[in-house]
Amino acid sequence: MASKESADNEHLVHSSDPDHPANLICTLCQKFYNLGWVTGTGGGTSIRHHDHIYIAPSGVQKELMRPTDMFVMDFNKREYLRKPTALKPSACTPLFLAAFTRGAGCCIHTHSQWAVLITLLVERDFGKDAYFEIEQIEQIKGIPKGRGKAGNLGYFERLRIPIIENTAHEEDLTESLEEAMEKYPDTYAVLVRRHGIYVWGDNVHKAKTQCESLDYIFQLAVEMKKLGFPWTS
Amino acid sequence: MASKESADNEHLVHSSDPDHPANLICTLCQKFYNLGWVTGTGGGTSIRHHDHIYIAPSGVQKELMRPTDMFVMDFNKREYLRKPTALKPSACTPLFLAAFTRGAGCCIHTHSQWAVLITLLVERDFGKDAYFEIEQIEQIKGIPKGRGKAGNLGYFERLRIPIIENTAHEEDLTESLEEAMEKYPDTYAVLVRRHGIYVWGDNVHKAKTQCESLDYIFQLAVEMKKLGFPWTS
Amino acid sequence: MASKESADNEHLVHSSDPDHPANLICTLCQKFYNLGWVTGTGGGTSIRHHDHIYIAPSGVQKELMRPTDMFVMDFNKREYLRKPTALKPSACTPLFLAAFTRGAGCCIHTHSQWAVLITLLVERDFGKDAYFEIEQIEQIKGIPKGRGKAGNLGYFERLRIPIIENTAHEEDLTESLEEAMEKYPDTYAVLVRRHGIYVWGDNVHKAKTQCESLDYIFQLAVEMKKLGFPWTS
Amino acid sequence: MASKESADNEHLVHSSDPDHPANLICTLCQKFYNLGWVTGTGGGTSIRHHDHIYIAPSGVQKELMRPTDMFVMDFNKREYLRKPTALKPSACTPLFLAAFTRGAGCCIHTHSQWAVLITLLVERDFGKDAYFEIEQIEQIKGIPKGRGKAGNLGYFERLRIPIIENTAHEEDLTESLEEAMEKYPDTYAVLVRRHGIYVWGDNVHKAKTQCESLDYIFQLAVEMKKLGFPWTS
Repeated sequence: MASKESADNEHLVHSSDPDHPANLICTLCQKFYNLGWVTGTGGGTSIRHHDHIYIAPSGVQKELMRPTDMFVMDFNKREYLRKPTALKPSACTPLFLAAFTRGAGCCIHTHSQWAVLITLLVERDFGKDAYFEIEQIEQIKGIPKGRGKAGNLGYFERLRIPIIENTAHEEDLTESLEEAMEKYPDTYAVLVRRHGIYVWGDNVHKAKTQCESLDYIFQLAVEMKKLGFPWTS
Repeated sequence: MASKESADNEHLVHSSDPDHPANLICTLCQKFYNLGWVTGTGGGTSIRHHDHIYIAPSGVQKELMRPTDMFVMDFNKREYLRKPTALKPSACTPLFLAAFTRGAGCCIHTHSQWAVLITLLVERDFGKDAYFEIEQIEQIKGIPKGRGKAGNLGYFERLRIPIIENTAHEEDLTESLEEAMEKYPDTYAVLVRRHGIYVWGDNVHKAKTQCESLDYIFQLAVEMKKLGFPWTS
Repeated sequence: MASKESADNEHLVHSSDPDHPANLICTLCQKFYNLGWVTGTGGGTSIRHHDHIYIAPSGVQKELMRPTDMFVMDFNKREYLRKPTALKPSACTPLFLAAFTRGAGCCIHTHSQWAVLITLLVERDFGKDAYFEIEQIEQIKGIPKGRGKAGNLGYFERLRIPIIENTAHEEDLTESLEEAMEKYPDTYAVLVRRHGIYVWGDNVHKAKTQCESLDYIFQLAVEMKKLGFPWTS
Repeated sequence: MASKESADNEHLVHSSDPDHPANLICTLCQKFYNLGWVTGTGGGTSIRHHDHIYIAPSGVQKELMRPTDMFVMDFNKREYLRKPTALKPSACTPLFLAAFTRGAGCCIHTHSQWAVLITLLVERDFGKDAYFEIEQIEQIKGIPKGRGKAGNLGYFERLRIPIIENTAHEEDLTESLEEAMEKYPDTYAVLVRRHGIYVWGDNVHKAKTQCESLDYIFQLAVEMKKLGFPWTS
């Protein structure tokens, strides 16, 4: 798929603009590493920039990445425009593409321990088919109402995040992720049982804000369980 | 309200002095982000500098703000002297003004999880009308006795922080925040149920010290509950 | 006590050597702030350098201190050689001096929450007169056997840290701190109930190592309690 | 063992390449300090570079090390090529060598509190001879199947980490560490009861990834216990 030329598309990842996707993925992943979201080379981040999809590679130390480590894919042709020869493309790629197909501009995948614990708590307390639900927490207002809807969730509205079962191979999550996206068209995130979360947004700013808000809510919800508080009334 | 000229009042936010309010709000918010207080664009900070009120904008990544992002308001006229066109003014503005009207020089709003958990614990264990109370913790001495009173609380004195109910819209908290300020004139902070806290002080140094001291006390108080210790004897 | 001249002893705090006490207290306190030990202007650090005692001032943001903020005292005369006019001397000074009198080269005072929780747990489970005791934790080996004794505690030896009751004023702790030092001459630390800890060592390296090792042990001991494990067999 | 000349082998630790072992051990240990793995001079790191073994010294502040602090040993002759006169060689050296003998390129020793708590939980719940076992956690996929086997563990496979008893002296762990390595030839890590963990890998990248992945799993496993979840089904 990647021709010799495509591997050399250096200009796609060279920019002095800190907000260029190739630079931004690096600074975001450093931050995510410090938050414990992408430890042990786990997790990943992808940005759509016009018709180019920038994707962090698989199996690299996420806090040490450089712009030249980025894979770049043509969104329409689904072909790599740039494929660093020494690196492996991310197994999350089809999942990121599912988000981009539904209008996302950025997709973040974390292995946050709070997210993992939430998937365990929901399964035990509400069953395997239940989604995570919480209400009356101010930070809920950091999450938009849904694609094509104006504004964010209100304090008295209920936040719902679907949960899908984990699979042996990351790419095999694609089908159930897409199913969850269809079934819950308003969601900007899907939890993966015993694994982590995929969060996306219209752009990098929104995806990051939503990912941070959700992680805050998950941590708070775990602490609430420890102290005996219900998530909904 | 903001004329074309007011939007251009660039000189109000340009200074090489790191203690200039426009610079200081940025460095404070970076620190608050690392403390988990303003994640997901939540929270905010405002400084009164003579008759100018400097306010961090709404909905921005608090760790990435620049001095040119600041809103500046004339304290007496309640009119914006500077209003960055691409940004939204903070919904916390009337709450910050309530603190400045009572003599504050700086007001900090956080979504600290410890503060949120304290509001849940107080409601469950002491009722909806109770305030948070604790005594005999050394860090209490970081909190002043009250406006116009000399010195800080003593180790054997009781710290009391009132709690108000959250509302759908942040600005609608103003009335109950002001009521709490009137009812508890000695307090330098008001907790907001399931939301966070507003902390203020005579100047930036005091507001930050009080906010840090309270957050330390809230975290300790949550851990005390987990281990079965009462907050007061 | 501080003459006009003494206040100007600038040369005592100006050095390009990062290991000079005036510089070192600043870098140490930045680190301690990040560890949550000196939040809200709490805690303090002092270094003995020949016959000069360097002391961080009272009531300052510990992560923002500069060498010129340091107080310097003549150890033998107990007189300030340098007293920054805008700042207050630390109320911990007599406690630091108690450690220096017993041969310490550096003394660290923290408000660590783990230390505070340990003082509560010991009081509840073993009584007001009990000291903290733990054994068979590798990190115990970071603590020396005692003044004038060779080497550090062994893995199978028991670590004991005395606890004194807090007082309304920090300086009033001096007498009971000195009593504890006399009663437990091997200890390099004294816990203060509901307050924090004083840790000292022959030099800066040892005081810091001992303070970090103890804080690690306290955190682990609190987690052990939560999970139902005893500290000693 | 170390001749005057060997102590001067400065060229072995001087390099402008950040990936040179002498530089890399310093940057790794700074990171490990921030993760709480090597607090109070605990823990250590060693890298094999061809026939040279680079080892961090004993009893130093791990976040402050410099390349010139490194010991260098000839792997075949087991003789020091470089031995900084003011420093003590690490008591972990024979344990690191045990890993290098079995093909490792890097070995990391931490005092992680999560590792210590896991050794306590396994002993209480499964007995003194049990190893730590967990399955169906995505991060397991960060651990290789075993030496000479292709690929990493799968999500549905069970991760097993042997646990050995602590000894009074670190070097006395060597025999039981080697026994565990023989008994569980697939393991890339051995837990030490009430002490910490030794993790190794084919190279620095793998050892760090494995150490981070295991620490993530240990922390998650402790939280699972607190919330009442079993590690295996």
